[in-house]
Amino acid sequence: MTDTAPNPLRDPRDKRLPRVAGPCVLVLFGVTGDLSRKKLLPAIYDLANRGLLPPGFSLVGFARRDWDHQDFRQIAYEAVKQHARTPFREDVWNHLSEGMHFVPGEFNDPGAFDALAMAVKELDTSRGTGGNYAFYLSIPPKFFSTVTEQLQRSGLAERSENSWRRVVIEKPFGHDLKSAQELNDIVHRVFPEESIFRIDHYLGKETVQNILALRFANTMFEPIWNRSYVDHVQITMAEDIGIGGRAGYYDGIGAARDVIQNHLLQLLALTAMEEPTSFSSEAVRAEKAKILSQVRLPDDLSLATARGQYAAGWQGGVKVSGYLEEEGIPQSSTTETYAAVKLEIDSRRWAGVPFYLRTGKRLSRRVTEVALVFQQAPHQPFSQTDTEELGQNALVMRVQPDEGITVRFGSKVPGTSMEIRDVNMDFAYGESFTESSPEAYERLILDVLIGDPPLFPRQEEVELSWRILDPVEEHWAERKKVEQYKSGGYGPDGADEMMARDGRVWRRL
Amino acid sequence: MTDTAPNPLRDPRDKRLPRVAGPCVLVLFGVTGDLSRKKLLPAIYDLANRGLLPPGFSLVGFARRDWDHQDFRQIAYEAVKQHARTPFREDVWNHLSEGMHFVPGEFNDPGAFDALAMAVKELDTSRGTGGNYAFYLSIPPKFFSTVTEQLQRSGLAERSENSWRRVVIEKPFGHDLKSAQELNDIVHRVFPEESIFRIDHYLGKETVQNILALRFANTMFEPIWNRSYVDHVQITMAEDIGIGGRAGYYDGIGAARDVIQNHLLQLLALTAMEEPTSFSSEAVRAEKAKILSQVRLPDDLSLATARGQYAAGWQGGVKVSGYLEEEGIPQSSTTETYAAVKLEIDSRRWAGVPFYLRTGKRLSRRVTEVALVFQQAPHQPFSQTDTEELGQNALVMRVQPDEGITVRFGSKVPGTSMEIRDVNMDFAYGESFTESSPEAYERLILDVLIGDPPLFPRQEEVELSWRILDPVEEHWAERKKVEQYKSGGYGPDGADEMMARDGRVWRRL
Repeated sequence: MTDTAPNPLRDPRDKRLPRVAGPCVLVLFGVTGDLSRKKLLPAIYDLANRGLLPPGFSLVGFARRDWDHQDFRQIAYEAVKQHARTPFREDVWNHLSEGMHFVPGEFNDPGAFDALAMAVKELDTSRGTGGNYAFYLSIPPKFFSTVTEQLQRSGLAERSENSWRRVVIEKPFGHDLKSAQELNDIVHRVFPEESIFRIDHYLGKETVQNILALRFANTMFEPIWNRSYVDHVQITMAEDIGIGGRAGYYDGIGAARDVIQNHLLQLLALTAMEEPTSFSSEAVRAEKAKILSQVRLPDDLSLATARGQYAAGWQGGVKVSGYLEEEGIPQSSTTETYAAVKLEIDSRRWAGVPFYLRTGKRLSRRVTEVALVFQQAPHQPFSQTDTEELGQNALVMRVQPDEGITVRFGSKVPGTSMEIRDVNMDFAYGESFTESSPEAYERLILDVLIGDPPLFPRQEEVELSWRILDPVEEHWAERKKVEQYKSGGYGPDGADEMMARDGRVWRRL
Repeated sequence: MTDTAPNPLRDPRDKRLPRVAGPCVLVLFGVTGDLSRKKLLPAIYDLANRGLLPPGFSLVGFARRDWDHQDFRQIAYEAVKQHARTPFREDVWNHLSEGMHFVPGEFNDPGAFDALAMAVKELDTSRGTGGNYAFYLSIPPKFFSTVTEQLQRSGLAERSENSWRRVVIEKPFGHDLKSAQELNDIVHRVFPEESIFRIDHYLGKETVQNILALRFANTMFEPIWNRSYVDHVQITMAEDIGIGGRAGYYDGIGAARDVIQNHLLQLLALTAMEEPTSFSSEAVRAEKAKILSQVRLPDDLSLATARGQYAAGWQGGVKVSGYLEEEGIPQSSTTETYAAVKLEIDSRRWAGVPFYLRTGKRLSRRVTEVALVFQQAPHQPFSQTDTEELGQNALVMRVQPDEGITVRFGSKVPGTSMEIRDVNMDFAYGESFTESSPEAYERLILDVLIGDPPLFPRQEEVELSWRILDPVEEHWAERKKVEQYKSGGYGPDGADEMMARDGRVWRRL
């Protein structure tokens, strides 16, 4: 079985069958971490509960803890009880936990990896996992090199004719083009590109995947999805929280590297890309790479970017401190917690249509959305007073919270005159489907086990994204100074000025 | 003041001012009828309550009753109390009722009309109504001739330099082209075309007017509003009631003349017409006439029409009788209570896009809507199973009940596969505006008093509509036989077969 082979369970001649993973072992590095406890272990249980894991599915935890299998199962049990999306069912849990094993060890301990190799091979025999292993590296990137080398040394990375090996890594994928290439080189020394699954959990969200369904399964939207009708596009990820306990990671990285390089550029790619020849991983990722290679920064970056750092303020009725007062942040830090960039796309579809990307912490509310803002109608047969409260049409894809789609358009105000005002037409995922949305990680882990990677950025996309961002980071590094903005507000004045120079405004947060 | 002069209160240089009628007298013929009591008198009160009538506004009732002013005021008081949309306010009522007068008389009694003439002239003096008279003929068309002649003879129809005369007539505007022309000739002998206001109360509905706002104030919809994207259009007016007490009028007329000729063809005109140069009456009516002149019946009417008569059945848990069992309907009647017609439009925008019109009584539910059904996407990059539950995109303008707009489109079903299913995005007038919608008659009466006729079909439109319908009526008259359909259902099988021949289906009622 190769990683790009079509899943036989999705044969289009069959009636719809659920996508179910084949026999395999998932090895989880960093099993004691937050992500593991809050997201990964619950998602694995949810998949099991939905019958999407094979009967012999096995999960091996690896960490520097003095645990036995039973300790691991207990930790996992608590994580599942607390965080799983689907109801707890004793029989599902019992079945799943039988396949759960723990191997203690340091990342640089050959003996531990030999023990790990023995453990998974034993599972191949006892549970019929067929020699198929996925290694989930839920660990800091600085350990990637050590762990992948150990996987190679111990023979775990080596696949036989009829089995597969996959490795899952979480962002950050470097902090600039150079470091991203180095990181890729490290992983590539052991795993070929098609076996590497880079997780951007945003891409596992329903609304993100729905961008492609919306655009290409319908007739109504694609005809206006271009420079003839779209005035500009705004892609926003606003958070209402600060950096929390992430000072050590965040400082020196900042909002642009943390969010724009991955989440927002991926949203841009899905929004702007041409129709893929099919929905296969190859085809979708080829189109994403193509559009990312067409993205261009404006010439004068001082006019086309903005950044800021949150100052003290009030949020949700609580007084909150500024970034420089957060624990672990040096007083001299110029790391931005808000970043905005204007991008252009050199393509026939988008030439002349700016894409404005922004992200920030401690803003007035939490929202992630992609908004296509349309041009004004080229002519209004109505009188000027009739349409003075009419704005631009907009199509907004809400990624979170409250996933859905909103269309803003002009409608007649009830009354005896022809006054026209903006109204919203709304579609909410939650209200329209009885199916509840799987967590992003459910989808992504299943895709890893099935070997279906359209939602995972490949190396080329990661590098193209850094190519876009690197000049912005260099520009900011030269300038050093970073504007303060009030917590609980709408971001720095510089970001508003950046839009105002183009005669536009940000969508209200 | 001429009837086509722009209303100075709508000067675009002004800030928005409410559209208020100038000084005038409204003379109501048929004041004892149902329409008057349930719709007209309450609408006049509502306009007064909203401050849209001038201070000296006067209302004169004329009918064959032995009433004095006080009797008329009492009848009107009860009508307002029972049917007005806005809250009852004593001071508004007192002010309005002071201007209410009654003139008793037969339609053919010259003395009564002389008395009427004296009464309104007295009002010009006592209440400053400036010699501006609107005559609302809420009476059967057979009396039009008599009444208009009396209006002329008594001098009431004759306008001076600085005043206006308007006459309001209700449908039916004839029962075929010839009778419509005769009716027009009768009214034209006394009133010029620009003084004639033909009321189709459907055109006073918010959603009907919003068709133009939706299309021309926005950017998003017009680009797909043509043969390149629209597969076909369905215009429906379904009623769940039978003919009620209207046997005398209805039999021999039928559904097509009663509804298609006026309501549905007007909806077609607003949906299909090109952009008017402005929203003035002249410009809008010119475009409506243009599109109606481009409407064409298919060659073989036996394939492109369907009709039926309701048989007994169950509706809302109640057993109801068939049309032929209704009181006053002859057993031999072949009058249809359901009619469907396929029309084509010979224009660059619509060539090859069929417009299917249907109307019927005793159907499963009451709904009036215009639905643009779009072509399937020209290509799906998804697998066949992923889109097998995906229908055609549709944009539905709901005229009643529950006025609003729905867009049906394909969205990803939450879950771990890329399954796509139809969902609805919805905009409801009631939820989006705090303003409550005026009744259609409020809007229309105000337009008459202001002299703003875009919502009133002019003679040309009426005649064009009969030109479209006459061949259908002749075709049916030759065939005689009419299919029975079950009350509470979806109409005759013939209507479904008519769509099936084109590979299409009616929208579910």
